[in-house]
Amino acid sequence: MKPIVLIPSGHGDADFIHATGFEVETALYIRFGEGDDVLVASPLEIDRARVQSKAVRKLTLEEAGFEDAGPYASYARLAAKLLRQRESKAARVSPRLEAGYLEELRAAGLDVEIDLDLFRVERRHKSPEEASLIEAAQRAGEAAVVEVVSQLAQADIRDGILWLDDSPLTTERLFARASLLLGEMGFTCPDMIIAGSPESAMPHYRGEGQIRAGAPVVIDIFPGGRTSHYHGDITRTVVVGEIPDDVRRMHAAVLQALDAGIESIRPGASGRDVHYAVCHVLVDRGFGTTTKGFEGPDGVAKMTHSTGHGVGLDVHEEPRLRAPDENPLLEGDVVTVEPGLYLRGLGGVRIEDTGMVAGDGFKNFTTLTRSLDPRDYL
Amino acid sequence: MKPIVLIPSGHGDADFIHATGFEVETALYIRFGEGDDVLVASPLEIDRARVQSKAVRKLTLEEAGFEDAGPYASYARLAAKLLRQRESKAARVSPRLEAGYLEELRAAGLDVEIDLDLFRVERRHKSPEEASLIEAAQRAGEAAVVEVVSQLAQADIRDGILWLDDSPLTTERLFARASLLLGEMGFTCPDMIIAGSPESAMPHYRGEGQIRAGAPVVIDIFPGGRTSHYHGDITRTVVVGEIPDDVRRMHAAVLQALDAGIESIRPGASGRDVHYAVCHVLVDRGFGTTTKGFEGPDGVAKMTHSTGHGVGLDVHEEPRLRAPDENPLLEGDVVTVEPGLYLRGLGGVRIEDTGMVAGDGFKNFTTLTRSLDPRDYL
Repeated sequence: MKPIVLIPSGHGDADFIHATGFEVETALYIRFGEGDDVLVASPLEIDRARVQSKAVRKLTLEEAGFEDAGPYASYARLAAKLLRQRESKAARVSPRLEAGYLEELRAAGLDVEIDLDLFRVERRHKSPEEASLIEAAQRAGEAAVVEVVSQLAQADIRDGILWLDDSPLTTERLFARASLLLGEMGFTCPDMIIAGSPESAMPHYRGEGQIRAGAPVVIDIFPGGRTSHYHGDITRTVVVGEIPDDVRRMHAAVLQALDAGIESIRPGASGRDVHYAVCHVLVDRGFGTTTKGFEGPDGVAKMTHSTGHGVGLDVHEEPRLRAPDENPLLEGDVVTVEPGLYLRGLGGVRIEDTGMVAGDGFKNFTTLTRSLDPRDYL
Repeated sequence: MKPIVLIPSGHGDADFIHATGFEVETALYIRFGEGDDVLVASPLEIDRARVQSKAVRKLTLEEAGFEDAGPYASYARLAAKLLRQRESKAARVSPRLEAGYLEELRAAGLDVEIDLDLFRVERRHKSPEEASLIEAAQRAGEAAVVEVVSQLAQADIRDGILWLDDSPLTTERLFARASLLLGEMGFTCPDMIIAGSPESAMPHYRGEGQIRAGAPVVIDIFPGGRTSHYHGDITRTVVVGEIPDDVRRMHAAVLQALDAGIESIRPGASGRDVHYAVCHVLVDRGFGTTTKGFEGPDGVAKMTHSTGHGVGLDVHEEPRLRAPDENPLLEGDVVTVEPGLYLRGLGGVRIEDTGMVAGDGFKNFTTLTRSLDPRDYL
């Protein structure tokens, strides 16, 4: 096998963290073979690398023979030099390597192969330790959802808007409360969604400003561990005040679709099987999707996204639970199941659990109520 | 000029946000020419794109003619198809494009040039509106530092460890308080540093667990706007309890180096000039650096990093204030000045301001005290 060369694409590069146990914005890692690797870091990072990284050898730039040749070229030439010292002129890289590095690695005379399967299998299959880190993140996510919902449950309604403690209960306030709680538990989720309606009809609208009563609030929290770097992922939807019949029907359908999706998970089932199980329920109940064959009637609420995705060092990783994916799920995959229905002008309803593909089905890491009623979370 | 093709590298891709006004994990953007561009997004994202993006045309994948061909190939072939419709077979891309896309764009028959200067000048030069968004982020950062330091100022010392409200005052608690405050202001900073000593001798150690008295606590906060996506960047270092003489000397030197660095900033000065101005002071005062010519004596505290960096949609962007950079600073650059000294076994002291290169020097966006004493922040 060709040596592996990794240069992170900024902070949080999951392949780099997976391979080195070390989170850093800029560095170089080469794995010549099993148990034979080197991490090269700047003077700024080297002491931390020595403490935190599991790479066998750790070198400063100077020790490794770094010469400044401008952006991209410097690290690429250093990689080529270290490989030549080991009489190798070939390297495998991640498809996520920055294009600037790919060009410069080739310009430095290396035969570079983009390995679409790099770390794919080993990152998909979660060890018991990884599973417990993800489960801990899921616990933190549940606690953050409860924090948000308990604020919502205490709100007063004035002119259709939520108020708490004499000021509007905004997304920003709820985001802040969730961040406080996650921070105390050692987690972060800077991109969490706390979206009122009708804007929640856009599934990835993160929310902003005042929140309306009598309409869905979508709360989607995917905490990452500040030191573990593993994630959880949970979504709940609640309504403060009177629950419109339309929303109640959407919620019931999404809930049934979630159960059907979870029921269909087992080793050997494909991502497509799970997605189709979800789509079937939604269409049966009069709704639609953007998946071919499950469009449903015009003008109804639709599911505009896939059913789920793997969760680990990345919030979104392999495997994918969606229409084209025919590859079998494997024991040890950790995935979300997250059906949703969205109607422009009304809003969205999404419910998401995360758990592990186990020998006998799905080991759900999620235990929180899925109720539309905030009081059920207290 | 060849058309520009952008495909984001996950969330927070600054080039993509700059070009489209839209933050998204996966999408395609092509700029055929000035005022002639198209954003293609999935059904999941298209409604949000229509509301948030400044691209002239917004298409769903289906409208654009997307065909699933697996990871990387699908979006690359779609880009090639849209370019062919406009009789173009060439494209410019960012060096930060993922290598998998670069390969597939070329495999689709495009003549692809990696443009190292793509958006470089226009992203460096901040408009008054951008400057005010960065200044707002810097205000949020200052408020978060004050929040952290005011907690520290209230702490009791027991057996050399900080306590507050009958439990240890940990990094996690301080992180949580800062996150609460940033969240309320509409900002996030998931990677902030709140590092006690001696670990703060590693400049990018983020902090964890209990905090010792009588030793430096480095607080480095770089808030990003949840909707603006612009950043600030500020660092302060404080000591709770008795301030060791060594730390006081390091702090005085860093403070003088900060002033010297700021004094040296003007349009036309180079990043190297500013860095050298900082290094001069540190060496004059008996300390050292890892910059050639400014090593100082063995065994003393050293500055192990560059003097600063541009700040905008990325926390770290052009220009760089460091030894090899001879390019002149330009009016409208927003940069940090952040000297630090670090001694293994003792800890680190870093002070960082952010401001703008102006006609007559440096317009500092930072107004917070730089004191070592937490009480001075109240």
